[in-house]
Order: sequence, then structure tokens, then C-alpha cells
Amino acid sequence: MKKIYGIGVGPGDKELITLKGYRLIREADVIFAPKSKGISTALKIAEEFISDKKIVELEFPMGEDNSSRYKEAAEIIRKTSGETGAFLTLGDPMVYSTFIYLLSELDKIGVNAEAIPGITSFGAASNITKIPLTLKGDNFYLCDGEINLDILKNSQSVAVLKTYKDKKKILSILEENGFEYVYVKRCSTENEVVLRDRTAILEDKDYLSLIIGRRKNNG
Amino acid sequence: MKKIYGIGVGPGDKELITLKGYRLIREADVIFAPKSKGISTALKIAEEFISDKKIVELEFPMGEDNSSRYKEAAEIIRKTSGETGAFLTLGDPMVYSTFIYLLSELDKIGVNAEAIPGITSFGAASNITKIPLTLKGDNFYLCDGEINLDILKNSQSVAVLKTYKDKKKILSILEENGFEYVYVKRCSTENEVVLRDRTAILEDKDYLSLIIGRRKNNG
Repeated sequence: MKKIYGIGVGPGDKELITLKGYRLIREADVIFAPKSKGISTALKIAEEFISDKKIVELEFPMGEDNSSRYKEAAEIIRKTSGETGAFLTLGDPMVYSTFIYLLSELDKIGVNAEAIPGITSFGAASNITKIPLTLKGDNFYLCDGEINLDILKNSQSVAVLKTYKDKKKILSILEENGFEYVYVKRCSTENEVVLRDRTAILEDKDYLSLIIGRRKNNG
Repeated sequence: MKKIYGIGVGPGDKELITLKGYRLIREADVIFAPKSKGISTALKIAEEFISDKKIVELEFPMGEDNSSRYKEAAEIIRKTSGETGAFLTLGDPMVYSTFIYLLSELDKIGVNAEAIPGITSFGAASNITKIPLTLKGDNFYLCDGEINLDILKNSQSVAVLKTYKDKKKILSILEENGFEYVYVKRCSTENEVVLRDRTAILEDKDYLSLIIGRRKNNG
């Protein structure tokens, strides 16, 4: 590969890919997709757009130390023949993604890489539920599972990704600090579910879920 | 209008509009665009896509109390004839936008409204500069001009919009707290400038600029 684009394919709805992301996917000689336990959500989102393309799947097991895998994946990308490649990323390439780690390995071995922004899951969830991330003067806080209290106490809104880590604790902290919340699972897909009831939220076990919180009486 | 879509047109590059946003703009009977001091950045971004459309510009003067204007704008939208309308929003409709305020007024008078996410300026800036917003376990903090120290001290990265308020103070706070930073002006447009030098940043006066900060030695 002479050039690789890390492309954010958004949270689930294939129409939430940008025009630029779509164009670069269509122009790419090879599509690279991260896989975890045999599943590639990013690939599934873009599947209609890449049926005629060469696809290379790269395994990055979730929850493991993947540092040697990033190195290997960068080498695979370098050695694959073609002018340009598209590495698909769920959401945005710069937000809790595999591509960030891959980027520094690509850099080390001299592969020209560029990142193309995508719609994040929390951005889409905010639009779907009409809960603003930020009104004028607001502070917004993004984290993945562990809420920092000093931050929360000074924020007007929060998005918590990877809620499966300890959902009960997350909800309790939000309640104790005067936050309303909504739980969005499989955001923007046909399986999307929006839950506001504490018990229903706690019963759900989906990995692709997030919580948006907003301080009560704050617009 | 029977239905109005608040559409995030992204930070500047027209190709950063989503496929969905593009489709809804093309399908709309009327395009509504917020204007401030005679300028509509959102309209400019989408201009190639709407040359054949009826366009209604709505003035929301910057820095003023626009509460009565939101009410008026909602009424104008309601009274405009047509099936669907597209209200263009710079960046994302749920992030420091006029559309959030408009939404509650539209709700009050029974106009069906939906929000379509867009690429944010800080999301695009992060991709352009390859400075991650979040690695695994990171906290990310978004604000508009005033940095809260309790949040910053517990965050790994930060995006500060509306930097013109007090750029010197913003840079000093970031430096004192161990953050590296980059200043991005007119992100993703042909006039985009990326600055890393303190003096150059302080000299710039552009309104459409932001600062991305990341804690040093933190990936």
C-alpha cells in the first residue's frame, strides 16, 4: 500500500458514513477491517459498499494486549499490493479505536496514513434522543466505563461508553450527582433500543451500548 | 413544514457531510440556514448541493440573547409551505448549536423535528492532526472558552472551542497542567491552518478556531 486511510464508518447506520469516507472506500484497492472474536462491526456497516473489493480482515482480540498485533497488522498493510487502502473504523478513528494504535506502527515503517473522521456513537445517540451534548458554556465529559467524580461534578453532560463494565455503579453515580440519563444500545442500527428505566437498563447485556447523562434542570 | 431535519453539515469540507445529511438536503423542499452578521457558514458548506432549492435565512446575532428569535424562527419554519425542510447546522446539531434552542420552540408549536448528526470541528481537527481524543481508559473534556481546572486535571485530552475569548489564558492553563496543544483554524476548509507555536497562535484572531490539548507522554 502506498497510502492507507483510516475511515470512520460511524456508529451503525451506513448512511452515517461521510461523503468523503464513502468516496475513499469506493476508490480503495483493498479494504482492511479490524475483527474481534470473528466479528467486524465496521465491515458490516460498510458491506453494501465493498462487495466488489478485496477485503483483508485483521484480528485484534478485545481486552487483550494487542501491541504485537498492531505491529503485525501494519506490516500486513505495508506488504499488501495496491495504491490505496481503506481501514474501516467503527465510529471515529480518533475515539477509543484500534486505528490510533495502528497509526503509530504504520508511521514507524513509513506507510503514509491519513484519518477520516466519522460520526461517534455518543454523537449519534445525542441526536437520536435530542439530549444536547453541550449548550452555550457547558462542559462535556466522555469516558469509557469508569466515571471520574471530579470531572462529573463540574460537567453538564456526560457520555459513558463500554457501560458493561459496571452499569449499576455508573447509574448510581449519575443519580447521586443529579444527572438524568438514557441508555442507547446498537445506536442508529435496526436493532437500536433506547431505555430510560433503571431496571431495564441493568438487565440489558449488550456490548455496543452507551449512556448519555445530562444534569437535571439544565436545558 | 410537516417535518424539519436539523442537519449537521460538518466543520467545513462539504465532503464531511454524511450520506444521510446529503440525501435529506437533496430531498428537502426548503433549506433553512442560521445567519449571524449576514454570514451563514453552514449554508456556504452546503451551497453546491442546494443551488436549485428555496432558501430561507434566519438571523441569530452572535453573543446576543436570542430567545425571542428562536420562537420567531420556529414560527417561520412552521408557516413555510412544503413537506420537509432541512435546517443546516455547522458541525453537529447537539454541540453548541442554535438548533438545540430552536428544537424546544418547534416542539412547543407541534412541528415534528429530527436531528441528524454531523462531524464536529474538534473531531475533524483530531483526525487532521492525528492527536487522539481518547485512547483506552482516557477521559476527554470539551468546553467553549473557559477551562475548568478540576476537569482538566483529571483529563487526558481536551478540546477548547471559541478560543478567541482568552487565548493567552487557555494556553497558559494547558502549559501549567502538562498539556501539549495544537491550534486549528478553519478546520477542513481550503483556508485551514494548523499552528503549534505559542506566539503564532496568540497572533491569530480567527473566530472559527479551536485548540486540541493532550497530556504529554500519554500516547
